[in-house]
Amino acid sequence: MTLPPTTTQHTTGASASASRQHTLRERNLRLVARAIYDAAADAVGRRDAVPPSRADVAAATGLTRATVSTLVDHLVAAHLVAELLPVATQRAGRPAVPLVPARRTVVGLGLEVNVDYLGVRALDLAGDVVADHVEAGTFHDSDPATVLARLGSLASDVVARVEADGMRVAGARLALPGLVDARTGELEVAPNLGWSSLDPVPLLGLPRLPVHVANEAKLAALAELAGDAPDSFLYVSGDVGIGAGIVVDRALFLAERGWNGEVGHVVVDPAGPRCTCGAHGCLEQYAGKEAILRAAGLPGDAPLDRLVEALLSDGGDPVGAATPGAGAAPLPDGGTPAAQARAAVERAGQALGSALADFVNLTGVSTVVLGGVYTDLEPWLREPVEAGLAERVLAAPFAPVAVRSARAGVHAALSGGAREVLREVVADPAAWG
Amino acid sequence: MTLPPTTTQHTTGASASASRQHTLRERNLRLVARAIYDAAADAVGRRDAVPPSRADVAAATGLTRATVSTLVDHLVAAHLVAELLPVATQRAGRPAVPLVPARRTVVGLGLEVNVDYLGVRALDLAGDVVADHVEAGTFHDSDPATVLARLGSLASDVVARVEADGMRVAGARLALPGLVDARTGELEVAPNLGWSSLDPVPLLGLPRLPVHVANEAKLAALAELAGDAPDSFLYVSGDVGIGAGIVVDRALFLAERGWNGEVGHVVVDPAGPRCTCGAHGCLEQYAGKEAILRAAGLPGDAPLDRLVEALLSDGGDPVGAATPGAGAAPLPDGGTPAAQARAAVERAGQALGSALADFVNLTGVSTVVLGGVYTDLEPWLREPVEAGLAERVLAAPFAPVAVRSARAGVHAALSGGAREVLREVVADPAAWG
Repeated sequence: MTLPPTTTQHTTGASASASRQHTLRERNLRLVARAIYDAAADAVGRRDAVPPSRADVAAATGLTRATVSTLVDHLVAAHLVAELLPVATQRAGRPAVPLVPARRTVVGLGLEVNVDYLGVRALDLAGDVVADHVEAGTFHDSDPATVLARLGSLASDVVARVEADGMRVAGARLALPGLVDARTGELEVAPNLGWSSLDPVPLLGLPRLPVHVANEAKLAALAELAGDAPDSFLYVSGDVGIGAGIVVDRALFLAERGWNGEVGHVVVDPAGPRCTCGAHGCLEQYAGKEAILRAAGLPGDAPLDRLVEALLSDGGDPVGAATPGAGAAPLPDGGTPAAQARAAVERAGQALGSALADFVNLTGVSTVVLGGVYTDLEPWLREPVEAGLAERVLAAPFAPVAVRSARAGVHAALSGGAREVLREVVADPAAWG
Repeated sequence: MTLPPTTTQHTTGASASASRQHTLRERNLRLVARAIYDAAADAVGRRDAVPPSRADVAAATGLTRATVSTLVDHLVAAHLVAELLPVATQRAGRPAVPLVPARRTVVGLGLEVNVDYLGVRALDLAGDVVADHVEAGTFHDSDPATVLARLGSLASDVVARVEADGMRVAGARLALPGLVDARTGELEVAPNLGWSSLDPVPLLGLPRLPVHVANEAKLAALAELAGDAPDSFLYVSGDVGIGAGIVVDRALFLAERGWNGEVGHVVVDPAGPRCTCGAHGCLEQYAGKEAILRAAGLPGDAPLDRLVEALLSDGGDPVGAATPGAGAAPLPDGGTPAAQARAAVERAGQALGSALADFVNLTGVSTVVLGGVYTDLEPWLREPVEAGLAERVLAAPFAPVAVRSARAGVHAALSGGAREVLREVVADPAAWG
């Protein structure tokens, strides 16, 4: 598991004052913890990787072996680092003790309310999922108090379970599909939930748990960092709405209040259909989940599987049970169900490619990660998206834009939120131990 | 003059290693220099501001008076800081010596090639212009070797002049209207100059001068920081092309290679006219300088003054000498010259408002600074731009987007480039002294 050094880019010029806020010992403790966690992150997917010993940490940090040894002892006692069985080395002296992130000692919680589910996930410091609970629902125009109380109850169950197993819960991140003020944690608006201007934390009813709130796409973007993601990328989360997170140098770019990445409302065609935001021809009207489903001749709330099924059907199988006996008969908007589904995704891909080209031209970040429903649609989206990027990105001839599917799996914001909690623990181990 | 702490946001997590790259004395020297320069920046426009004394610097930095005194002596000896005449204080002891940035000792040079001019400007540490030379020309599809040699010759004259006056030149920044790789300083492409894939520095013929290359709009954005600019803003530079610089927390946001802010190629209408970039309906085709002039019935290379004159003419004065005797007669594209000019700028403003809304939605930065030709057109652009932003920026109801004119004056990239050179001097005074 990789722990990005900071969540925001608000750090310029802060080194001088930061060094006065912490004692030398606290800073060194952080350096040592980071060396061990960075090594674990680098080892992901490498079978031959050997965890660092105290001597390796000393070499990586420039600290003396005696200092490192004391600090490692502190991290082990605080259950943030674990020692594996010693391995004999070719060097003289005692065998080296490999140091790794501790398992099942401290956990972070990811919480999420989205349009069609609630979720709670607990990760430990090694990045393993120790609890995962997702409950389907429909939360269009829902009551925030009811929904958040239900999520709080699920979270409370998870906390009780992991504490019964001897783990400590460091805190939680709540992911919401809307504009969250990064400074205050208040939700300004979540159009697809019908929520606005509220502080969601008290409504969870979890007084003992420190909870911070963030935008869903931004936490999902951070979840990508656990894998082999590049250091900088645009994470685009396709759902009913379309959100995005901008990751630069392994940290989320938040600028003022984190109200960025609203790619769903980039103009695709000023003469296009009216959007829920009030403007016309926004990307969401072409490449939002409901827009794609409807263009494919399916109900807007159909499961994505039905669309994928239609895309995979060759030359005209009926799409699901909604049109019994319709066979290969043309649907109102053209062609067989398969052809119509492909045309719908093609149109979405063209709109997405054009909007993402604006996103790349404006931010200068040249890798696009397709998350949310786009991950499953990627085989059909890739070609039109890449064509749009190649046509419109000015720097494309010198640095082609890379497009890839998200790899953090379903409900990535839950993992991203849990990781953020743990990143803060490791970034300031003195506060925790 | 305000010196932003860093030029890029590539600083996350660097505090630990940065503190190992510099000795404690070097870091303290930087702290002291920054305290004096920050105080000078804060004093801009405040008549009652008193420059800090050694005691004030000690209080601001947390260093002892003895340490500060030694370090200030070093900065004075290096001609980076000057002492004003002592002023009596109400406190006991010796009168305080006010400390200010030194004047006419060290200068930074800004160099620029743009479509219709070459320029060289020298600023001293106090932010005063000590030399300024701008030469008009037409550099559409020009020969880079010829143009850069001419600019180098102008720069060489300026260097000779300021050195004859006893000043030292710390270095130069070359501003170009194109995609400059922030890592290598190579120009990938400058469409309106017809230049591509070249390293411009050797062509200047200035072997003794350290020159770095940057995008014109980005340096112009940094020039805004000299005044009362907010900490974060989008600087939009309107010319034949339209560039932009993203400033976050007083530093330029560069992400990977600095190829961002390409707002001129945001889609305004996919069915619109073909752009020089190959795509259709880019902002540049509606709100670029030539596009506005032509829509106003003027030649694309007419001076901006003729457009402003038309905008100011009430109810139909002829526009300049190109239409002698035409009086209030309608021009081919509608209305009187004044009405046509206003319609052209209104259309540009609408397109600009829509594209800037995308820019704000994607970056989350909520102040827009109109630079380049937009500064002079601001009285007519503001209303349609603000309307577009209000309609399309999702966060506008919670944080209205502020629109303001650039205040750094003409050829702002020259000042921004010179400032950048000096910022680096003050950021590492030990390397200079």
